[in-house]
Amino acid sequence: MLINNTPTTTIWYDDRDSNVYIIDQRLLPHEFIVTKLQSLDDFCFAIKEMQVRGAPLIGVTAAYGLAIALRADASDTAEKEIVQQLIATRPTAMNLRWAIERIQKLISAYPESEKAKVALAEAHIIREEDITICEQIGVNGLSIIQTLYQQKQRTINILTHCNAGWLATVDWGTALAPIYKAHFADIPIHIWVDETRPRNQGASLTAFELSEQGIDHTLITDNAGGHLMQHGMVDLCIVGSDRTAANGDVCNKVGTYLKALAAFDNQIPFYVALPTSTIDWEITDGIKEIPIEERNPEEVTHISGLNEDGQVTTVKLVKDSKASNYSFDVTPARLVTALITEKDVVKADSSSIEQLKLSLDIQP
Amino acid sequence: MLINNTPTTTIWYDDRDSNVYIIDQRLLPHEFIVTKLQSLDDFCFAIKEMQVRGAPLIGVTAAYGLAIALRADASDTAEKEIVQQLIATRPTAMNLRWAIERIQKLISAYPESEKAKVALAEAHIIREEDITICEQIGVNGLSIIQTLYQQKQRTINILTHCNAGWLATVDWGTALAPIYKAHFADIPIHIWVDETRPRNQGASLTAFELSEQGIDHTLITDNAGGHLMQHGMVDLCIVGSDRTAANGDVCNKVGTYLKALAAFDNQIPFYVALPTSTIDWEITDGIKEIPIEERNPEEVTHISGLNEDGQVTTVKLVKDSKASNYSFDVTPARLVTALITEKDVVKADSSSIEQLKLSLDIQP
Repeated sequence: MLINNTPTTTIWYDDRDSNVYIIDQRLLPHEFIVTKLQSLDDFCFAIKEMQVRGAPLIGVTAAYGLAIALRADASDTAEKEIVQQLIATRPTAMNLRWAIERIQKLISAYPESEKAKVALAEAHIIREEDITICEQIGVNGLSIIQTLYQQKQRTINILTHCNAGWLATVDWGTALAPIYKAHFADIPIHIWVDETRPRNQGASLTAFELSEQGIDHTLITDNAGGHLMQHGMVDLCIVGSDRTAANGDVCNKVGTYLKALAAFDNQIPFYVALPTSTIDWEITDGIKEIPIEERNPEEVTHISGLNEDGQVTTVKLVKDSKASNYSFDVTPARLVTALITEKDVVKADSSSIEQLKLSLDIQP
Repeated sequence: MLINNTPTTTIWYDDRDSNVYIIDQRLLPHEFIVTKLQSLDDFCFAIKEMQVRGAPLIGVTAAYGLAIALRADASDTAEKEIVQQLIATRPTAMNLRWAIERIQKLISAYPESEKAKVALAEAHIIREEDITICEQIGVNGLSIIQTLYQQKQRTINILTHCNAGWLATVDWGTALAPIYKAHFADIPIHIWVDETRPRNQGASLTAFELSEQGIDHTLITDNAGGHLMQHGMVDLCIVGSDRTAANGDVCNKVGTYLKALAAFDNQIPFYVALPTSTIDWEITDGIKEIPIEERNPEEVTHISGLNEDGQVTTVKLVKDSKASNYSFDVTPARLVTALITEKDVVKADSSSIEQLKLSLDIQP
């Protein structure tokens, strides 16, 4: 998608210097900075400190991290150590494990001297696949928006939470992919963007993405969605997922559950857009089984923005109270209208997800 | 309640210089500033710019505003003009109208030369009554917490949204009054404080109040409550109300509705604490009939806090997107366990509220 009217992706490999480059998303939307990742530490830092974020992009970054780190030492001991460090960066991130396990499985058949090269080639494939998968999520979600537009014959108002846009993937995004597709199909749309405290990915990233692409949108506080839904100002919700249980429970950015409750209460369709790689086939009860990451309370007590002099500044919002920072929540499947995957739009229940699994030909 | 270990109220009249003083709450918790209100403009500014906020405190401030403004000119034309200006400051505020109408009714029987004096005496009474009413809400709410404590025999976790503490009233508060009473009764309590974007009254005021009083509490984002409730970390919710419909619908700070949905979904009691003066006996459908104030979008796009140099600074959170700022929402009565009033704890339904009205001997 576009930044400064230039097609851009969030991560790429430059053959000229054999390095991986990312957009450092921490200073967005105020500053657009590209960063080179060279060492395992660089990759771990990028994931842990959220230079990159979003389940799919974390997966691709981890894949490149493993490949690049294997260049220095591809012994079994080193590989184990690398994998451990990468996984420890974000315990909730399903795609991270998925990408790493995929590469590990593949390189296990190769001699030590070949592993780094094979891993890098596979990282490239994972990156390309991510683009294709996201675009396909867009295609599948587009038909939902199209149908709604045919019914209503007016601008379709879509609410989204957090950033599941192209900045969370390599390109296109998950929740925003159908929105981009609708925009390209000339369907009039307007997006309500939840700011998504504490890290404000909605205000910083989703609003920025939509703005750069020229899509009409309005920033709102996380508190406002219920009122909008109660008064007919939202036609559908689309959010992303960090981890999806085999029963359809969806673990996504904290606050998603509250929006799903409001959508349900007002009979507004609530869709979750996700690559099938975020589905954890082993988990049959998302609420009980998915561990919720607690992040630094400073994300709650402090916030960053641009001061009057145009400098990015962090300010403290509270005097001396302690804070807690659960970063995700689980939306029960009963509140989810359907899952928009790259394969198909499927109901959020065990049997539909089992069908999806069969169609993907995933080994038990 | 306490600030710096000194018993303080939010508004008082000083007989020595015949002036009204308030805490300018806009710089709390970072700076504690007392401001003198002398002219009608001062009072209108104080209400409109939220130097004072909270339904009961707005009512008391408006009462004093009317009394002080009548000193300069107590003619019928002047009175009409004063009332119009005061009411225009906050269209949603039920207590504002209530306090003004009460004084107008009273002074209508007095000659022009007496009106200012009589109005001031009535403002004093309204202030004193507010203290008594809030304390009585505390007493009535205490029994709910006490019962829960007897059942659970462990720390009771209470979630609150926005600030319905003593800073929103003259003293005690509404939603926080039962909490203060429980604290004074040595019941172990812990409060989850929603930060309450966009103006962050939870982080700035509720957390500050509880901190100054030495009550255990944790600041959370507005997004987090659903997760906490889903995992048994909340025993009850208590919030305030800016305007309560005769059918039990509650208009309170935006985001209240989302918390009520989550409480209902997890079978957690959801109480609304309010003086009966916030009940609008004419409104029988809160969702349809209560107009929702839209405030300046800059409250969403910008936020204030303390920078690294200890200066209160405003930072911009978004690049160039527009924002919307609906400040209240309406929680349907079906999600409300009961209303805690100064009179009694009553069910949030038309017939219980009608009973309450009869017991208050309010004329139709």
